[in-house]
Amino acid sequence: MSLRFEIRKTNNAARRSTLHTPHGEVETPVFMPVGTAATVKGVPQDLLEQLDVQILLGNTYHLYLRPGIDQIRKLGGLHRFMSWPRAILTDSGGFQVFSLSDLRKVTEEGVTFRSHLDGSSHFLSPETAIGAQIGLGADIIMAFDECTEFPADRKRLRDSMEMTLRWAARSKKHFQEHKSEVPWARIYPDYYDDVCVCVGDGQASKNGARVIENDDLRLPAKAQALFGIVQGGMDHALRKESAERTIDIGFDGYAVGGLSVGEPRALTREVVESTLQHLPKDKPRYLMGVGTPEEIVEYANLGIDMMDCVLPTRAARHGLLFTSEGKISIKQARYSGDQSPLDPSCSCPVCRRYSRAYLRHLYSSNEVLSQVLNTIHNLTYYLDTMRRVRHSI
Amino acid sequence: MSLRFEIRKTNNAARRSTLHTPHGEVETPVFMPVGTAATVKGVPQDLLEQLDVQILLGNTYHLYLRPGIDQIRKLGGLHRFMSWPRAILTDSGGFQVFSLSDLRKVTEEGVTFRSHLDGSSHFLSPETAIGAQIGLGADIIMAFDECTEFPADRKRLRDSMEMTLRWAARSKKHFQEHKSEVPWARIYPDYYDDVCVCVGDGQASKNGARVIENDDLRLPAKAQALFGIVQGGMDHALRKESAERTIDIGFDGYAVGGLSVGEPRALTREVVESTLQHLPKDKPRYLMGVGTPEEIVEYANLGIDMMDCVLPTRAARHGLLFTSEGKISIKQARYSGDQSPLDPSCSCPVCRRYSRAYLRHLYSSNEVLSQVLNTIHNLTYYLDTMRRVRHSI
Repeated sequence: MSLRFEIRKTNNAARRSTLHTPHGEVETPVFMPVGTAATVKGVPQDLLEQLDVQILLGNTYHLYLRPGIDQIRKLGGLHRFMSWPRAILTDSGGFQVFSLSDLRKVTEEGVTFRSHLDGSSHFLSPETAIGAQIGLGADIIMAFDECTEFPADRKRLRDSMEMTLRWAARSKKHFQEHKSEVPWARIYPDYYDDVCVCVGDGQASKNGARVIENDDLRLPAKAQALFGIVQGGMDHALRKESAERTIDIGFDGYAVGGLSVGEPRALTREVVESTLQHLPKDKPRYLMGVGTPEEIVEYANLGIDMMDCVLPTRAARHGLLFTSEGKISIKQARYSGDQSPLDPSCSCPVCRRYSRAYLRHLYSSNEVLSQVLNTIHNLTYYLDTMRRVRHSI
Repeated sequence: MSLRFEIRKTNNAARRSTLHTPHGEVETPVFMPVGTAATVKGVPQDLLEQLDVQILLGNTYHLYLRPGIDQIRKLGGLHRFMSWPRAILTDSGGFQVFSLSDLRKVTEEGVTFRSHLDGSSHFLSPETAIGAQIGLGADIIMAFDECTEFPADRKRLRDSMEMTLRWAARSKKHFQEHKSEVPWARIYPDYYDDVCVCVGDGQASKNGARVIENDDLRLPAKAQALFGIVQGGMDHALRKESAERTIDIGFDGYAVGGLSVGEPRALTREVVESTLQHLPKDKPRYLMGVGTPEEIVEYANLGIDMMDCVLPTRAARHGLLFTSEGKISIKQARYSGDQSPLDPSCSCPVCRRYSRAYLRHLYSSNEVLSQVLNTIHNLTYYLDTMRRVRHSI
C-alpha cells in the first residue's frame, strides 16, 4: 500500500481524514489548488506553504508538452523540478485532450491529438499517460479515462464507460509493471530529508542527492498511488456499474469523473450522491473539477474527500474575488476610493495589508501584482472554506 | 529642514551616509527600485521589505494619469495607498513627459502633452508637478525640469538650462507655499506609528487615523524634502553654472539630470565627475536613471549617494538576469536541464529555492511567476551590490 487513508471523524456522510503521502500529510476534505504548468500562476511556492497548501494538482497534458516528461524525470521529478516538497496529484491528461475537440481522434488504443501550442501531433494512451505520470512522480496519479461529453445517449455512454474500464485495467497493469521507475524511488535528494526516510546504503552523489544503492524499498509510503475514475454520464445505473467494475480492478482511491461538463448543478449533485453510495468507505474519494465555494462545502458534506478547480485562480486573474460578504468584481469603479480590506473577515496577507482601492488600481492598470495578490486571496478563501468544513465534521 | 543627511564615513570621493526621512532611514549609497504605478511590477510589498528595500521611486506621470493624484491624496498619500511605510521618492513627471516626443508641446509656462493611455490632453508645469508630488506625499520630491535631448547644440543647451533654472525657482516657490498640504502632515494613520512621532493633541478619526488638531508641526522630519536638478547637457561650463545657480535657489539635495539619454558611457562618467565638483558635500546627490551593476558601483565611488533605474526590473521581465558570474539570458535552451541555482553566490529567496531549469521553464511558458521570481533576484543583485559598496567605504 502506497497511501494510508486514516479516517479520524465522521459526521453523517462527511469524513475528516488524513491522507499520508510520500510527501507529507494532507488533511481532508481538501481543496487542491491547480498548478497547471508546475506553478500556481503567479504565486511563489513559499507563499503557498505559508497559506498551508498541503497538496497541489499538476496537469500532465501541459507538462508533457512543455518542458516535457523526460526533462522533468531527469531533473528528479515534479516535486524537485518546481521545488515543492509537499504532496502532488497529477491528472492523466485525458480531460485536457478531450477538451481539444477539434484536434483529437479517439481509438481503442488511445488518443491522437494536436498540441495547442504548436500543432504538433502526439499520442496518449493508458500506457503513455501512466508512464508520463510515473516520470513526473506525483504522489497520486490518475488512470487514463474518457470523459464523456454532455449530453450523450445511453449507447454512447455505455460504449465510453466500457472503454474507460478497459483503459483502467491497462492503466493499472502498466502502473504495476513500471511504478518502481518513479524518479524519487531511488534518488532522495537531501531536500526531502524531512519527509523521506531513506532506506539502504545512502551515498552522496555529485549534485548533493543521496542515491539509494539497493532496491529494498521497504517503506510502503515511498511509492505512488493510482486512482481509478468512475464514468457513466448522468445515468445512475451506469454510474453504479462503472463504480463496481472499477473497484473490481482495484485502486488506491476513486475519482468521480465526467461531471461539471455543462450539466445543471442539481444534476451534478444527484450523480455525486448516487455514485458515492457505491464507493468503498475506506478509500479516498475525489470529485474532479469542482467547484464554487458553496459547492465544495456541499460535496464535502456528501462524503467527498478531495476536489480541485481552476475557479479560484482563474477568477482571480479576471478580478473576481470571493469574500465572506459575497463575490466582488474588483474592476468596478465603486472600489476606487474604498479604503477597507477586500474581506474584513479574512486574515490572508492581502486582506491584512492592502485596500480595495489599491487592488482596484492594480487591476485597472493591468499590473502583474494584481494577479499575484488576487490569487493569494482567492486561494485563501477556498482553503479557509475547507478548514471550516473540516472543523465542522 | 525636512531631511537629515548624516555622513558617517568617507573614502576618497565616496561617502557612506544615513538619510533620515519621515518614513524611516535610508542607508546610502542607495539604489532605489522603480515602482512606477505604485508597485514594483510583480513583487508584493512584504517581499520588498524582506529584501530590505528602504526607499522606492514612484513616477508622478503614471500616477497622475492613473489612478490620479486626487484619488491618492484622498486615500492618505502614496505610502498609505500602496501600503509602503518606508521612504518614497517621486520624480516630477518631467522626464516621462519629455519622452513623449510626439505628444508634447513645451512653452515657458509648462508642457502640454497627450496621455499614452487614452490620448487625453494634460498640462504639467512647475506648479502642477510640485502640487501633484505634494498630493502623493513622497518623502523626497523633485523640481520640474527640462531634460535636454542628446545631442544638442550650445544655444539649445543654454536656453534649456535657463528655463530649467526658472522652473526650479517656481518649483521651490510653489513647494514653500503648499508643503503643509502633504496628506500625512495632519493625518498620521496608526499604520505609521512606528515611524511617526505625532505632535499636538491626537484624536481618533473615523477610519482609525489620528487627526492632528493643531498646526504645531515641531518635528522638522515630518515634511517633504525638495531636490533641485542640475542640467547643462554634456557641457562642463554649463553644468558648473547650472549647479551653482541651482544651489543659489537652495534645495534639500541635488540631482544630476539629463544623463543616460543616449550619450556614450565614458561621457556620462566625465559629466558626473565634473558636476559633482560643484555640488555641496553636505547634501545628498542623486544621479537619475542609471545604470548597470558596474556603473552604479562606479558612480557611488565618485560620490553619488542615490540612484534609480528600471534596468533590473525591466531586464527581469525579459529574462535577463544579473549574477556574480555575469549576465544570464534564462530563455536559452542550455539552461533547460541545469539544476544549479541562478547564482550560487546569491542568497535571495529565488536562488535559495529554484533551479535555472525551473526558471527557464517559467520563462519559456510565459508564466507570470517568471517575472515575479526574476525581478526578486535582479533587485537582490542590485541591493547586494550597493550593500557591498557601502561596506567598502
